[in-house]
Amino acid sequence: MCMMIVDVEENDDVLVPPTNFSMVEDGIFRSGLPQPSNFGFLETLNLRSIIYLCPEAYPQENMDFVDAHDIKLFQFGIEGKTESSSTSIPNHTITGALKVLIDVRNHPVLIHCKRGKHRTGCLVGCFRKLQTWCLSSVFEEYQRFAGVKWRATDLRFIETFEVMCLRQCLYSIIYQYQGYGSNKRRLLYQEESIQKPKIKSI
Amino acid sequence: MCMMIVDVEENDDVLVPPTNFSMVEDGIFRSGLPQPSNFGFLETLNLRSIIYLCPEAYPQENMDFVDAHDIKLFQFGIEGKTESSSTSIPNHTITGALKVLIDVRNHPVLIHCKRGKHRTGCLVGCFRKLQTWCLSSVFEEYQRFAGVKWRATDLRFIETFEVMCLRQCLYSIIYQYQGYGSNKRRLLYQEESIQKPKIKSI
Repeated sequence: MCMMIVDVEENDDVLVPPTNFSMVEDGIFRSGLPQPSNFGFLETLNLRSIIYLCPEAYPQENMDFVDAHDIKLFQFGIEGKTESSSTSIPNHTITGALKVLIDVRNHPVLIHCKRGKHRTGCLVGCFRKLQTWCLSSVFEEYQRFAGVKWRATDLRFIETFEVMCLRQCLYSIIYQYQGYGSNKRRLLYQEESIQKPKIKSI
Repeated sequence: MCMMIVDVEENDDVLVPPTNFSMVEDGIFRSGLPQPSNFGFLETLNLRSIIYLCPEAYPQENMDFVDAHDIKLFQFGIEGKTESSSTSIPNHTITGALKVLIDVRNHPVLIHCKRGKHRTGCLVGCFRKLQTWCLSSVFEEYQRFAGVKWRATDLRFIETFEVMCLRQCLYSIIYQYQGYGSNKRRLLYQEESIQKPKIKSI
C-alpha cells in the first residue's frame, strides 16, 4: 500500500513538455499545440504570455488554462498551408507577432502553432535574423524542428523577410522601454554601430 | 566607398552559431565542435565553462579561445562509437559531467562533442531525466538533434541511466551551495516531497 502511494507520487512528478518544445532564448519558448497533459509542465515555465499562430479559435481547455494562470493570449491567425498552396504568410502578421515577441514585458512567452514546425519555425527564423544570425544557421534550426516536413516556401519567406525596418522597430521599443540613457539592450547579442533610431510610438 | 565600409560592417555583425547549437536551459547551451568562425557568436554567450565530451586533445585554436576568455574547460573523454560498436558510455563519466553541468557556479556553460548529436545528446538526455521529463519527450529531443543518425544504443543508455542517486547528489549540491534555509532550487522545475538528503562533500 505504501509502495503504491510512492508510485503515484512518482507519476505526478513526471513532466510532459509539449511536442517540439524548446527554449529559444531567455524567456522565449516554442512548441506545438499544448495538450492538457502538458499543462503541468507549462506551469513550471511561469508564462506571462502565449503567441498563438493559427486562425482557429483557441481550444476551450487551453483557454481555461491561460485564464486560470493569468496568461495573456496573442493570436496571429496564419493559415496552415501545404507546400503546394500559393498563399504565403503575410509579412505584417509576422511583424506584429515579432513586436509582441521581442517586448520583454511579455516574457516568459511561448510561441506555438499546431505542430511547432512551419508557422512557429517562420517566426523564430525571422527572430534569428533580427539577432543577426547567418542564414545557414537560421535554416539549420528551422529544419531541425520541421524534419522531413520542411518547406522550401518557408525558407524563402524567412530569407526575403525584410528585417531592417524591424530592427529599427526593435531599437525604438528598447529605447522607449529602457530610456535613452541605458546601454543595456535585451535580446541583442552585441552592440552594433548604428545610427540612433528615431523614437516613435509602437 | 562609403557603401563598402557599411557592407564590411554588416558582415562583421553576422553571427555564426556552431552546428547543432541550441539553448537547453537558462545558462546551459549545446552544440557541435565550435570552429573559429563561431568564436564571435560564442563571445556573446559570456561562457564561464565548456564541457567537452571527446577523448581527443582540445584543438589549439579552441584552447586559445578559452584561455583568452578565461573559460574553464572540463573534458570528459567519451569514445565516438558507431551503432555497431559494443563499448558503451561509462556511467561514471556521464555522472561526472552532470555534476559539473548542474553546478550553477559553472554557468553559463556550453556542452559539446564533435557533432552535437550522440555524446551531447546522451548527456542532455540524462539531464532531462534529472528534470523529471517523461522519457518520450527526452527521446524526441535527442532525435531532433541526431536526425537520421540516431542510435538505439543511445536511447537505451539514457533510459537505463540511474537518475535517483544523481538526484540525491543534485540536492546535496544545492543544499551545500545555497544553505539549508533556502527554498530556491535552481534547475528544478518544482518542489518535490522528498526526504532531506544527507549533506556530503562533492
